[in-house]
Amino acid sequence: MPFCQKEGKKIIFTNVGNPHALGQKPLTFPRQVVALCQAPFLLDDPNVGMLFSADANKRAKHYLSLTSGGLGAYSDSRGLPGVRKEVAEFIQRRDGYPSDPELIFLTDGASKGVMQILNCVIRGAGDGILVPVPQYPLYSATISLLGGSLVPYYLDESENWGLDVNNLRQSVSQAHSQGISVRAMVIINPGNPTGQCLSEANLREILRFCYSEKLVLLGDEVYQQKIYQDERPFISSKKILMDMGSPFSKEVQLVSFHTVSKGYWGECGQRGGYFEMTTSLPGFVVEEIYKVASIALSPNVSAQIFMGLMVSSPKPGDISYDQFTRESKGILESLRRRAKIMTDGFNSCKNVVCNFTEGAMYSFPQIQLPPGALQTAKQAGKVPDVFYCLKLLEATGISTVPGSGFGQKEGVFHLRTTILPAEEEMPEIMDSFKKFNDEFMTQYDNNFGYSRM
Amino acid sequence: MPFCQKEGKKIIFTNVGNPHALGQKPLTFPRQVVALCQAPFLLDDPNVGMLFSADANKRAKHYLSLTSGGLGAYSDSRGLPGVRKEVAEFIQRRDGYPSDPELIFLTDGASKGVMQILNCVIRGAGDGILVPVPQYPLYSATISLLGGSLVPYYLDESENWGLDVNNLRQSVSQAHSQGISVRAMVIINPGNPTGQCLSEANLREILRFCYSEKLVLLGDEVYQQKIYQDERPFISSKKILMDMGSPFSKEVQLVSFHTVSKGYWGECGQRGGYFEMTTSLPGFVVEEIYKVASIALSPNVSAQIFMGLMVSSPKPGDISYDQFTRESKGILESLRRRAKIMTDGFNSCKNVVCNFTEGAMYSFPQIQLPPGALQTAKQAGKVPDVFYCLKLLEATGISTVPGSGFGQKEGVFHLRTTILPAEEEMPEIMDSFKKFNDEFMTQYDNNFGYSRM
Repeated sequence: MPFCQKEGKKIIFTNVGNPHALGQKPLTFPRQVVALCQAPFLLDDPNVGMLFSADANKRAKHYLSLTSGGLGAYSDSRGLPGVRKEVAEFIQRRDGYPSDPELIFLTDGASKGVMQILNCVIRGAGDGILVPVPQYPLYSATISLLGGSLVPYYLDESENWGLDVNNLRQSVSQAHSQGISVRAMVIINPGNPTGQCLSEANLREILRFCYSEKLVLLGDEVYQQKIYQDERPFISSKKILMDMGSPFSKEVQLVSFHTVSKGYWGECGQRGGYFEMTTSLPGFVVEEIYKVASIALSPNVSAQIFMGLMVSSPKPGDISYDQFTRESKGILESLRRRAKIMTDGFNSCKNVVCNFTEGAMYSFPQIQLPPGALQTAKQAGKVPDVFYCLKLLEATGISTVPGSGFGQKEGVFHLRTTILPAEEEMPEIMDSFKKFNDEFMTQYDNNFGYSRM
Repeated sequence: MPFCQKEGKKIIFTNVGNPHALGQKPLTFPRQVVALCQAPFLLDDPNVGMLFSADANKRAKHYLSLTSGGLGAYSDSRGLPGVRKEVAEFIQRRDGYPSDPELIFLTDGASKGVMQILNCVIRGAGDGILVPVPQYPLYSATISLLGGSLVPYYLDESENWGLDVNNLRQSVSQAHSQGISVRAMVIINPGNPTGQCLSEANLREILRFCYSEKLVLLGDEVYQQKIYQDERPFISSKKILMDMGSPFSKEVQLVSFHTVSKGYWGECGQRGGYFEMTTSLPGFVVEEIYKVASIALSPNVSAQIFMGLMVSSPKPGDISYDQFTRESKGILESLRRRAKIMTDGFNSCKNVVCNFTEGAMYSFPQIQLPPGALQTAKQAGKVPDVFYCLKLLEATGISTVPGSGFGQKEGVFHLRTTILPAEEEMPEIMDSFKKFNDEFMTQYDNNFGYSRM
């Protein structure tokens, strides 16, 4: 249900990366497995095969055997050991390097994991965290909540939102001059809100930089399964770090995050995630993170099972393989088409330029606002991009997030939309956007337009 | 499965309040409903009635209609409005006073709620929180994590773990003399680890005290559905506060916590909880708590539905009513018998005295250790109750928590067990405990027993 009737107006929610809220259907197989785990009394019911596939039943029994009393029992505060083992096997298959289940913690969504790690890094206002700009506000909010200092580094829009290591150096020296010691760096790959995939060369530079500056690297890789082009595939920071070998692989402290929310599964409401730490994190730090996690006892167990299922989906020959593959491909291919419709749509608009969404699920067009619009916004007491987004909402019902919510360079304006509205509705949405935008630009282009708004 | 084979020894885990891990079966009706919510594609399957009751199906449709895209979509960061409304109705039925859904937040278990509120109260080491001793370590750990100061007040073991307001006054003046300003007070009712139910008179005194000292009261009421006697029923702090009327009801800032983990449902691994704030909390504080909650996006949605189900269980006339009632009564009546077996068992032991478990799910016997045991423990570099609990574990496989983990008066020792082992195993466990204890006491009673251990 992508539309919501509110005071007679159809609102199109493209402001939150929440695929199921915009009509994406859940994948059948994992839902069957978790439903059976919730209803273990059905597993051996003679009629169970009428509603559930036999391989879902088998998997449910497998996951229940990994718990200490089903979904109603607390797990270890790091998550079920058996699921952490499956995650480690997935990482090993993905990267070609060993992964240790003891260094993997399951969490209630990746956000909770990020908060746990930042909590461990930040001691006070003197501790700085390098965060990309534009960035997903989880980072700014958490750093502010924990009393640390956000140290911004700018992504280069003209280089398809790539990362320039010289910018990092500048940011660090500037922080130093303010008495802030930078302790960690965040990368979001694929990017949110920018949608870019970091190149292998870029990742190497970043890791070398973290090595020389002794920074913990937080690799937010929650969109790793959502890639919409073939030229620049997702590569994990862990793989590059291992490729680089000693001394980097032995000394760079990397924590990577993943989730069941942000892949093509889109299971946001289940709140499942994990983080993996590299062996370079000292044992006492891992112990401390464990201790803090144990205050809240245990991440929710059903989402742990979703995570297990996500990293070990049906294989060729399994009863549910065909259906699972068909459903997965359907979602991913449609998203790929939607990413293109959206980028092309934005680039056809007056004063709008937009990089292609290489991955993740956002589009982040730059909106070049004419002086008249800037002045009218100022008169109205609004930040210019907020002014634009509100006008867009009023005129079309399209709800977006002003770029200033993610941070941007002075005088440069954006908005963020998701690429999630249903594919069949996309052309109409983009037409409606173009109509609004081009009229807005014409109106403000050659005059200050006070009287017209 | 209450026993775990470890290196040939049967370990009896009575150390964690995790009923399903000790063999308690989940209630059928709520699990049917949540299983169907996970598998919405089954709702209208012609065969669904062969595995799921019709009222579970109807309820699943009801809860799905409250979501914005099923269990896979984020909810509002405060939880689903429809479930918060059901919680408010439950509170209103329980207390006879209105409850406002806008002041109810759903959380990933009560622990997360407690952490959110303490995070909001504590600004630094100068902010003190009154916490009962003995206490559940969530409080000490969270206060320490947030950099606040724990201000202990002692519960009176000789008065069945009652609360003496004079102790509170002493604790507050002592804190003041150390430059700590007390901002909030925690009560755990029914108590953990003590199992006591606070009397109405006690609750009035506490609320009056919070009024005069301008303290936020955190009412941890997660065991409110687990009561094992009829003389002292659970009464909520909210009800007493409303009974007291103005100025108390208008000015005391109360936050009460509840969960799906700790009632007879015992659904710990689902991680569902709520907190309710009273109208005396300023609007900007509620807004701030909402803002912080929104950093982690949304509590897990399936546990929100468990919470909805817990506060609106089947009614007479519903298809599942009889089964639900039979299952619920079975659990509660057995727990009541187990509470008695355990208290009686402890009180039959040498040098052990134990208050009756009025509610919750713990027993907290005092172990009067003879001087010989104290000295041997010291020689071994162990806290005396830790020494005792380790010996108990070695001799019997019974795993308990030393009382020092919860705090206690100098020179007084306890242990905490849950009353959760299966009823049929309880007599054997208590016999085994008594045999160990009485031998231990005899061994240390009249000599220092160095050579014997």
